[in-house]
Amino acid sequence: MREPIYLDYNATTPMHPRVVDAMQTALRDAWGNPSSAHPYGQRAREIVDTARCEVAALIGAHPAEIVFTSGGTESDNAAVIGVAEALQAKGRHVVTTAVEHAAVGKAVDALERRGWEVTRVPVDAQCRVEAGAVAAAVRDDTVLVSVIHAQNENGVLQPVREIADRVRPRGVVLHSDTAQTVGKMPVGVDDLGVDLLTIAAHKLYGPKGAGALYVRSGTPLASYLHGAGHEDGRRAGTENVPGVAGLGAACRIAREELPGRTEHMRALRDRLENALREKFPDLVVHGGGAERLASTLSCAIPGCDAVELLARAKGVAAAGGAACHSGQRHVSGVLKAMGVPEEIAYGTMRLCVGSPTSEKDVDRAAELIAEAASVMRP
Amino acid sequence: MREPIYLDYNATTPMHPRVVDAMQTALRDAWGNPSSAHPYGQRAREIVDTARCEVAALIGAHPAEIVFTSGGTESDNAAVIGVAEALQAKGRHVVTTAVEHAAVGKAVDALERRGWEVTRVPVDAQCRVEAGAVAAAVRDDTVLVSVIHAQNENGVLQPVREIADRVRPRGVVLHSDTAQTVGKMPVGVDDLGVDLLTIAAHKLYGPKGAGALYVRSGTPLASYLHGAGHEDGRRAGTENVPGVAGLGAACRIAREELPGRTEHMRALRDRLENALREKFPDLVVHGGGAERLASTLSCAIPGCDAVELLARAKGVAAAGGAACHSGQRHVSGVLKAMGVPEEIAYGTMRLCVGSPTSEKDVDRAAELIAEAASVMRP
Repeated sequence: MREPIYLDYNATTPMHPRVVDAMQTALRDAWGNPSSAHPYGQRAREIVDTARCEVAALIGAHPAEIVFTSGGTESDNAAVIGVAEALQAKGRHVVTTAVEHAAVGKAVDALERRGWEVTRVPVDAQCRVEAGAVAAAVRDDTVLVSVIHAQNENGVLQPVREIADRVRPRGVVLHSDTAQTVGKMPVGVDDLGVDLLTIAAHKLYGPKGAGALYVRSGTPLASYLHGAGHEDGRRAGTENVPGVAGLGAACRIAREELPGRTEHMRALRDRLENALREKFPDLVVHGGGAERLASTLSCAIPGCDAVELLARAKGVAAAGGAACHSGQRHVSGVLKAMGVPEEIAYGTMRLCVGSPTSEKDVDRAAELIAEAASVMRP
Repeated sequence: MREPIYLDYNATTPMHPRVVDAMQTALRDAWGNPSSAHPYGQRAREIVDTARCEVAALIGAHPAEIVFTSGGTESDNAAVIGVAEALQAKGRHVVTTAVEHAAVGKAVDALERRGWEVTRVPVDAQCRVEAGAVAAAVRDDTVLVSVIHAQNENGVLQPVREIADRVRPRGVVLHSDTAQTVGKMPVGVDDLGVDLLTIAAHKLYGPKGAGALYVRSGTPLASYLHGAGHEDGRRAGTENVPGVAGLGAACRIAREELPGRTEHMRALRDRLENALREKFPDLVVHGGGAERLASTLSCAIPGCDAVELLARAKGVAAAGGAACHSGQRHVSGVLKAMGVPEEIAYGTMRLCVGSPTSEKDVDRAAELIAEAASVMRP
């Protein structure tokens, strides 16, 4: 049986063969503990140091500003809770948006349970947050603003730079969850103007279980994992040397392949969107009127439940219900925040392309989706 | 140049070839997101499920009681802080020992900064904690006792079972940092009588960046990483599928190889200890009078600084200064707690054997250490 066409690159990516090669070395040869002074340890330490430079280079940071983590969720938690704890004497108010990934959304919920105040700035029907609204939410006791760069369900890009220009001069720390954008488009820490940003290796052809947090030099951050003084005291735990090696390689490859990678995805995503719109003129495209990440098409064919549609279109592997965690069947909070009617929300699929995607893939996927939908609605 | 003889198995272990094979599959083929409903995701989910069963089987637990983490440090933090937070309405007192690994030690320090009270039960000159002293430290507002199973620097085993019998009937939750013992000796959750225990894959021929926390069914535990509802809501973040696969394989192999693995290590450790004692009758062996983990020899040759000794004995790769994190030169808090004089503390080496260690290795290592020491003291 032929493998289904993979259109779920925002959920995760296959590993680049060069990433696997880099991990091999770490798995087989550089298995020492980077904290050990002997050659076994130093071989592992070199791999970690090199990877740190590769990650920094991709986002225009200094290597010392990179903290390795276990992935995007940990990076988001470490940023949000770490800054809030470090600055609690100054104030206990955090500003974020209504459309964050759960790793930020649930982290601010946890702060709220512990006595912090949280303002969640709403979005418009295109999932855009207004920079002015974020700035207006900042108070004297606000210590942190956290805004997702590209919304993971629909790819809509938020005006992070504009927000930075408005809130950072007021002494507020700015974090952005860039898990979906790093490696898919150029992301520079100074271009974005952020103090912290989140990287998840498995979103850019690297391994699951590895990530990084960029922490601008001088940013107050309470340690999130306590123990021996790894990562310059910012994150305890023996380094995930193979994972770090994989993340480093993934960042190096991204730097080589961008911006061509973005253009490739944009062309295919647009081709897929056009093909579906041709077959279904009433196709609803979420965030279609906004600037979007090139990989992402979030759309609904009215009258077709997405989970059922994708169950019928077995040749396509994509996410239905727009839920990151598909085990749970619920209307996406993001679609709710955008004011999408429930019927359309249940009809929403997320179709995401990646580097390995071909024109043939998207053409065939559009056909398979159309076939399934035509059975479902008269 | 020949590779130095590796005698640092408590710091980390090389990966078992079958572990690398298991990770290969996850890296190359099962790269989907386990939360995805499509076949790419389900292939990854199967790997995670299988690994969960393997981990559970090694320690006599139910698979649902296993939470995958990024390693020993996260498991320790999640246990200590997670239980303390979950039970803070009941009380804010924690009991631990003076000789915990930093991942527990610094986690309780963090609780203390946040208003919890901590009692650190002292040890005797052999690094043993008295079960009676731990029980005596328990108060009405005590919610958690955390006791390391085998002390990582000297291998001394603590009476966890006896402590369990005394404190658990009083409604106190018991955690043990078993990072050094799982895979090196039989560890069963019911034999030990613990509510939570810590596993670090890279201590048992598995990969760095992967670990597990055993959580006995019904144990109150606040989530440590917030986000999508992975790990049954107990630990958010896309699963580290290759790391989890590696941990599962490492646990399967450990189950097959125990107890022979223990006997092999004990014979070699004793051989090494005897060889050194023959050459240096004044050899100080820390915890030599206590029950010890079979892998570990913590010892000092009076008059020889360990860091200098190991720098001279380049053919041996071991830890000097007894510091887990060798970048920092300081007297180990564990040796301080045991009342070891400073000169002997600075002379302390940790020599640890593992499955790949041979008689030839330990004989040669003893010779190399003796050669170096004989230059250093008249």
